[in-house]
Amino acid sequence: MTADDAGPDAGDLTFDFERRQRIGLAETVLCAGKSTGQLERILAETSTRLPNLLLTRLAEASYLALATKWVEAIDYDATSRTGILGACPAAAGPARVAVVTAGSSDLGVAREAVRTLAFYGEAATEVHDVGVAGLWRILERQETLQRHAVVIVAAGMDGALVSVVGGLVPGAVIALPTSTGYGAARGGETALSAALTSCAPGVLAVNIDNGYGAATAALRILHASRPR
Amino acid sequence: MTADDAGPDAGDLTFDFERRQRIGLAETVLCAGKSTGQLERILAETSTRLPNLLLTRLAEASYLALATKWVEAIDYDATSRTGILGACPAAAGPARVAVVTAGSSDLGVAREAVRTLAFYGEAATEVHDVGVAGLWRILERQETLQRHAVVIVAAGMDGALVSVVGGLVPGAVIALPTSTGYGAARGGETALSAALTSCAPGVLAVNIDNGYGAATAALRILHASRPR
Amino acid sequence: MTADDAGPDAGDLTFDFERRQRIGLAETVLCAGKSTGQLERILAETSTRLPNLLLTRLAEASYLALATKWVEAIDYDATSRTGILGACPAAAGPARVAVVTAGSSDLGVAREAVRTLAFYGEAATEVHDVGVAGLWRILERQETLQRHAVVIVAAGMDGALVSVVGGLVPGAVIALPTSTGYGAARGGETALSAALTSCAPGVLAVNIDNGYGAATAALRILHASRPR
Amino acid sequence: MTADDAGPDAGDLTFDFERRQRIGLAETVLCAGKSTGQLERILAETSTRLPNLLLTRLAEASYLALATKWVEAIDYDATSRTGILGACPAAAGPARVAVVTAGSSDLGVAREAVRTLAFYGEAATEVHDVGVAGLWRILERQETLQRHAVVIVAAGMDGALVSVVGGLVPGAVIALPTSTGYGAARGGETALSAALTSCAPGVLAVNIDNGYGAATAALRILHASRPR
Amino acid sequence: MTADDAGPDAGDLTFDFERRQRIGLAETVLCAGKSTGQLERILAETSTRLPNLLLTRLAEASYLALATKWVEAIDYDATSRTGILGACPAAAGPARVAVVTAGSSDLGVAREAVRTLAFYGEAATEVHDVGVAGLWRILERQETLQRHAVVIVAAGMDGALVSVVGGLVPGAVIALPTSTGYGAARGGETALSAALTSCAPGVLAVNIDNGYGAATAALRILHASRPR
Amino acid sequence: MTADDAGPDAGDLTFDFERRQRIGLAETVLCAGKSTGQLERILAETSTRLPNLLLTRLAEASYLALATKWVEAIDYDATSRTGILGACPAAAGPARVAVVTAGSSDLGVAREAVRTLAFYGEAATEVHDVGVAGLWRILERQETLQRHAVVIVAAGMDGALVSVVGGLVPGAVIALPTSTGYGAARGGETALSAALTSCAPGVLAVNIDNGYGAATAALRILHASRPR
Amino acid sequence: MTADDAGPDAGDLTFDFERRQRIGLAETVLCAGKSTGQLERILAETSTRLPNLLLTRLAEASYLALATKWVEAIDYDATSRTGILGACPAAAGPARVAVVTAGSSDLGVAREAVRTLAFYGEAATEVHDVGVAGLWRILERQETLQRHAVVIVAAGMDGALVSVVGGLVPGAVIALPTSTGYGAARGGETALSAALTSCAPGVLAVNIDNGYGAATAALRILHASRPR
Amino acid sequence: MTADDAGPDAGDLTFDFERRQRIGLAETVLCAGKSTGQLERILAETSTRLPNLLLTRLAEASYLALATKWVEAIDYDATSRTGILGACPAAAGPARVAVVTAGSSDLGVAREAVRTLAFYGEAATEVHDVGVAGLWRILERQETLQRHAVVIVAAGMDGALVSVVGGLVPGAVIALPTSTGYGAARGGETALSAALTSCAPGVLAVNIDNGYGAATAALRILHASRPR
Repeated sequence: MTADDAGPDAGDLTFDFERRQRIGLAETVLCAGKSTGQLERILAETSTRLPNLLLTRLAEASYLALATKWVEAIDYDATSRTGILGACPAAAGPARVAVVTAGSSDLGVAREAVRTLAFYGEAATEVHDVGVAGLWRILERQETLQRHAVVIVAAGMDGALVSVVGGLVPGAVIALPTSTGYGAARGGETALSAALTSCAPGVLAVNIDNGYGAATAALRILHASRPR
Repeated sequence: MTADDAGPDAGDLTFDFERRQRIGLAETVLCAGKSTGQLERILAETSTRLPNLLLTRLAEASYLALATKWVEAIDYDATSRTGILGACPAAAGPARVAVVTAGSSDLGVAREAVRTLAFYGEAATEVHDVGVAGLWRILERQETLQRHAVVIVAAGMDGALVSVVGGLVPGAVIALPTSTGYGAARGGETALSAALTSCAPGVLAVNIDNGYGAATAALRILHASRPR
Repeated sequence: MTADDAGPDAGDLTFDFERRQRIGLAETVLCAGKSTGQLERILAETSTRLPNLLLTRLAEASYLALATKWVEAIDYDATSRTGILGACPAAAGPARVAVVTAGSSDLGVAREAVRTLAFYGEAATEVHDVGVAGLWRILERQETLQRHAVVIVAAGMDGALVSVVGGLVPGAVIALPTSTGYGAARGGETALSAALTSCAPGVLAVNIDNGYGAATAALRILHASRPR
Repeated sequence: MTADDAGPDAGDLTFDFERRQRIGLAETVLCAGKSTGQLERILAETSTRLPNLLLTRLAEASYLALATKWVEAIDYDATSRTGILGACPAAAGPARVAVVTAGSSDLGVAREAVRTLAFYGEAATEVHDVGVAGLWRILERQETLQRHAVVIVAAGMDGALVSVVGGLVPGAVIALPTSTGYGAARGGETALSAALTSCAPGVLAVNIDNGYGAATAALRILHASRPR
Repeated sequence: MTADDAGPDAGDLTFDFERRQRIGLAETVLCAGKSTGQLERILAETSTRLPNLLLTRLAEASYLALATKWVEAIDYDATSRTGILGACPAAAGPARVAVVTAGSSDLGVAREAVRTLAFYGEAATEVHDVGVAGLWRILERQETLQRHAVVIVAAGMDGALVSVVGGLVPGAVIALPTSTGYGAARGGETALSAALTSCAPGVLAVNIDNGYGAATAALRILHASRPR
Repeated sequence: MTADDAGPDAGDLTFDFERRQRIGLAETVLCAGKSTGQLERILAETSTRLPNLLLTRLAEASYLALATKWVEAIDYDATSRTGILGACPAAAGPARVAVVTAGSSDLGVAREAVRTLAFYGEAATEVHDVGVAGLWRILERQETLQRHAVVIVAAGMDGALVSVVGGLVPGAVIALPTSTGYGAARGGETALSAALTSCAPGVLAVNIDNGYGAATAALRILHASRPR
Repeated sequence: MTADDAGPDAGDLTFDFERRQRIGLAETVLCAGKSTGQLERILAETSTRLPNLLLTRLAEASYLALATKWVEAIDYDATSRTGILGACPAAAGPARVAVVTAGSSDLGVAREAVRTLAFYGEAATEVHDVGVAGLWRILERQETLQRHAVVIVAAGMDGALVSVVGGLVPGAVIALPTSTGYGAARGGETALSAALTSCAPGVLAVNIDNGYGAATAALRILHASRPR
Repeated sequence: MTADDAGPDAGDLTFDFERRQRIGLAETVLCAGKSTGQLERILAETSTRLPNLLLTRLAEASYLALATKWVEAIDYDATSRTGILGACPAAAGPARVAVVTAGSSDLGVAREAVRTLAFYGEAATEVHDVGVAGLWRILERQETLQRHAVVIVAAGMDGALVSVVGGLVPGAVIALPTSTGYGAARGGETALSAALTSCAPGVLAVNIDNGYGAATAALRILHASRPR
């Protein structure tokens, strides 16, 4: 008897379908730690109730293990480990959010943010591989970044790029610490702590490698800018 | 020869006077760890250059140790340990930011946020002592909070209020973890980690007890809502 | 010469057969870290002395590696990684224990608790996927939960559900922190610390992912309710 | 202008007066971190609404700094740092809870539990200074402890007494780790972790030095034993 | 070009052949982290200079990957992951060291100690699976243990057995914390910290899972008992 | 009502008078965390039952706060914060234990070990301020140290002296990590961890700053050397 | 669709080609965490712009997964997991840097330093397996080491060799902590902390296992010795 | 009998007078944790043997508690808590070391480095309060810093200045993390970890708040630049 054969009945799921109406963000499926059986039940139950669905932390092997109908229906991106079921709204107007990386190893996490924004119809300006060891790289982009309402900064190791950006732009700055690095990088803890103690005022942080969280926080901020 | 007599010459200060023009937030003085001599030099140098100045983490004893002219000139608030030199702009329009506390021990940190917002002419709606152990308290305020662009949630110990608020409002939610509690509260680390791992999507965090940081982050978000 | 061939003789085991008479809980086999040879010796020695035996943390591969007679004799559940050798007593009367999960990733750990209760003839009411991000889910179940003597709350990440339940029910509340989450979730440490610092009074905690421990603690509490 | 003069208005308090009706436990005042002004406002507001009030972590100096009317009205115990305003119900029947300490340095924390139980009219059997280095001490009390529905075990350092008691009694065992010890005791973290990983099945834990939490958990367990 | 082909020349080794003359303990090979090539060079260089050689943390796969001549020459024990090249002296007289385990999962680490003692011609009395949850198990062995000069106690999780033994025997007690357990066991850190903060006086500790270290420490203690 | 007036009755103490007969080590009073009232009750109860008594971690202020009869009766040493009530046996024969310090800041902890040994009639050879930064200092003492059955090495910061001594002497080596240092010394954690991971085989460790523990461990080792 | 097919376009890279002109050190590729596609794009873009390129943390499997033209063009060393594309300058003059290891398990990390130095045309003197447990090994090399401007000391576990070397040589000492060891070695954290708290004055540290960092720091020091 | 009266005899000190000849750095007195009596004995013993002596971490109160002859003889600086007994050599030539601070709270630690350099006759260029939140401040000094052989960067909180400097200058960069900050700054651990994981290559680190260590490391580097 294998795990999925013995899997739980449908009673293990209680969807919060009205979440989008309440807070502007729909329920999303964090796939890590869920069995193929659970994922398929979730897909089956939501696909008839929701116009589209975002899946995060969906490992390529887990994606390919799904039934063929799901593999074909899902728009999968291996770099960000995200899947999207159903269509996304087209982006309206220029990008209001910029997503910046310190190094190319931070790309996957940054792309999780970009894909999440796209799921909600928000374009993102991507600026990659501009860590402070070559400071000219970020200084060249200063004016571009200043035009965005929100700047998400994905950085691991020392996370120094966050503070530099925080000192250059007036908009909201969301630190997205990544697990890039080893030893004293401690799986992203150092970059996270550095973000929280940034010498630049008013910098905000989300969890390590949480591109989804950075993007949904940006969406909340864009909500906040709607006329009251 | 005492510490202040032997203190450093003026060369230990390099003010960033243009910070407000660049990012919309002026330089602020974190008073903890600075000697009376350093604080007085800072006050002397900035008072002729800046229209007003915010001082944070100014212990009551340090405030009273300043020269009389500064004691009299500074508007000091002991609960938040903040001082303001010079006038603040009047608040224009209804509050766009709400500041919520889980318990009355979180008040000082929350007031640091309120005072910082006031320094920039932003009113704040205060909602106090509404921890989740008595859930009706926050549920009663749900509609009020939904009307604000930003909700700052000051909570120590388990920090559970952050996630509950995050599930109730569409605006930006800034977790302000506090050092309230003992033992496994670990000086606010538990509340901070809980905020970073909130099951509510898009919650943001600042450093433990950093009411100033939460408020300046809220100001950045309000910047972001200006017409582009 | 392989590990099991070279394995220790029977002298490495000292069973505490009278444990159930002494404290009402029988010896159980934590299978993680034991070789196939050790497990088979344990099964052989106990099967003639005890009416039934509970095996926890028995990975599916380890279960399938046992001799066929054991594979056939054991009632195995892959979701909870538990095996039961021998019959369990039928549950008498309505469930006195409720087992609640914050998300569907917490299911395996919760089911370990449910299976352990069943081993002792206690039914459990299961309430799944009711995390606080959609607060209505737990509020809808408030009356149900209030009717139970013990509520076990399995939650990872921020563990906020524990405090919310603790504020809603008068019975014993056992936090069962899970390792669901990443980054600042720190393998369940954050949920554990949040449980220990709950703002709701009188909440109790067991080790991370210890569904067995939560269930046996519930059984002790039910022992406590017997007439003296 | 001093801290209390500048203190917050009454709006910083939102009492949960119905908590006792809802969960059987009344709101209690954690005094650490509250100013004299805050404490006096809390006393004034609650004394007309509640029959009695428990104050925990009330340092002797803070107690003596209260207005004379409160100093006289409060029954203060310096060992446990608790104060009780108003009368407690008389204990009915024999003790159902035992409170055990490993060493005499754990006494203050244990007494916080005893005083909390007394506040709710529950007697406690106290067994002190019976750490496992002299194992006969706890073995001599085994039968006594087996007669109690709940055994609270206050222990710091290695916390080994918890596991020994857990192997001897059938009732609920609540580990109350204390900050007794130094170095690798890490302020109680080691005793807490040892409780959570106890080799005795079904042991429960509360926060370090949280005598109040252990007692309220015991009260919840006694609630659970009422007929349904 | 593979790792071993490109491996370092013999210049990466500087043997301390006179260690045994100096401190009574010969150089031993910690195999974890060494390549097959390195291990074979070490075996070649030492086999002509030393009468015998102890290899620790030699995974079964690494052992089998060695050249056939070494596989045949080495006495390998998979439970303890130790290998012995060359003959060991016969044990003289009754065992002066006892090796005790709390549970059967601690067996491998304990056997590393037993094998190390055997390498030096010291017999060991083994007492297994006597954790404190069934206290009678260790109490039954008290007299036996009191007759040994050194008692090594291998225990993971709460490590409570260490303190109980420390309170029962007059000889040297060496805590050998093991990584048995999960969650708050933190890979053996809790058992280690508990050993260091034991309420029994004069308990000593070695590193987590360091059976070799416990045995060599016992050998030093036996050295100390030689007539001066 | 002050703390001592309200202090617990004599029932908070359960002496283990037979400890010395059982394990060769008498009960000792760890004074930190005990009130003057508790200490005086302990002194009164034990002084008629035991020939002498060792008090550790007795701050000078706590010592001086005792009743005059106790101040006069106790032999107090401020460097080690130890007090001895009653006479100690005269040391018989040459020292079998050496106590070594890396720096003069480690002196107090080392002296706690020396005083504990003296309490049991064991002389100690003291070798101070011989840290490895000036390696000649310890090399000059190598022969002296090799003549001792046990060498206790008190070292903070990097704790490197422990490994150097471990490589030079054949007897038992007890690392006594101290809290000397700052920053990454982490209150002695680094020295403790270094001792546990010593590259010298068979090194043993006690808790940070636990001079008493190192000495009682040495006494156990000397017990072990008695003829069986 | 696999990861590399779906990989990011070239826009994820922003090379800092002028780094060598600015600080004397060229951009290097940390290969861990980069996909084969990313590595090949980097190789293609840089090979036409830079005379040579250093690749670090290039696992053998990742190296072999590159297109044949890169496998053939890269000089790969499996021990250090480094690859070099293009020619290195010949070393001029005698070695100014010594690289020392405590044990043979530290070899890979040390060789990363040696290869990095070679990439910049600096020879290194290698001294291996000279840990302090056999102190004569390092003392024999004292004069050799004193002749070098920089000594890099690779050591894991207790890291004691760093302090011993720091007390013997006048040149710059760079501690290169390694992850050798287990348990309290904590993946190199103990060796790192020991280096930072060395009792030898003026010792410097780089990150755990960061042979590249140690070598580039040595190169900066050699830059510093050029005439100004 | 007070601590100093009962203090240890002169035998607790073993000076390493030849350290300067051996490694170019003289023994220095770390005053924290030493009693007045110990300090005076050290001063008496060294003043006749050494031309001058540096005292670090000498609190102002400890300095003033010394005998008048020492108070008068010592050149004390309260900002850096350093004292110098005897004359320092005059600085020869322009400064080869720059000492940079991120904020004015880092001044004391930086000055400890400056005073240590002065003790050895090395001038230092001081550049203060140039944190990255106002990036122009450090960019303005880039050319100045590039002219120095060594740049010491004192920074707390996020420590981001270290990486920015590391990307701008070719000389040796020594990160001097400070304990400035609160919460997630963790007493300097975050700045330390950020330095160790700097994205700029070849950055070196010393312990938190260890200005003395940074300066002596700089001196070693200057030693390294002498002709061989």
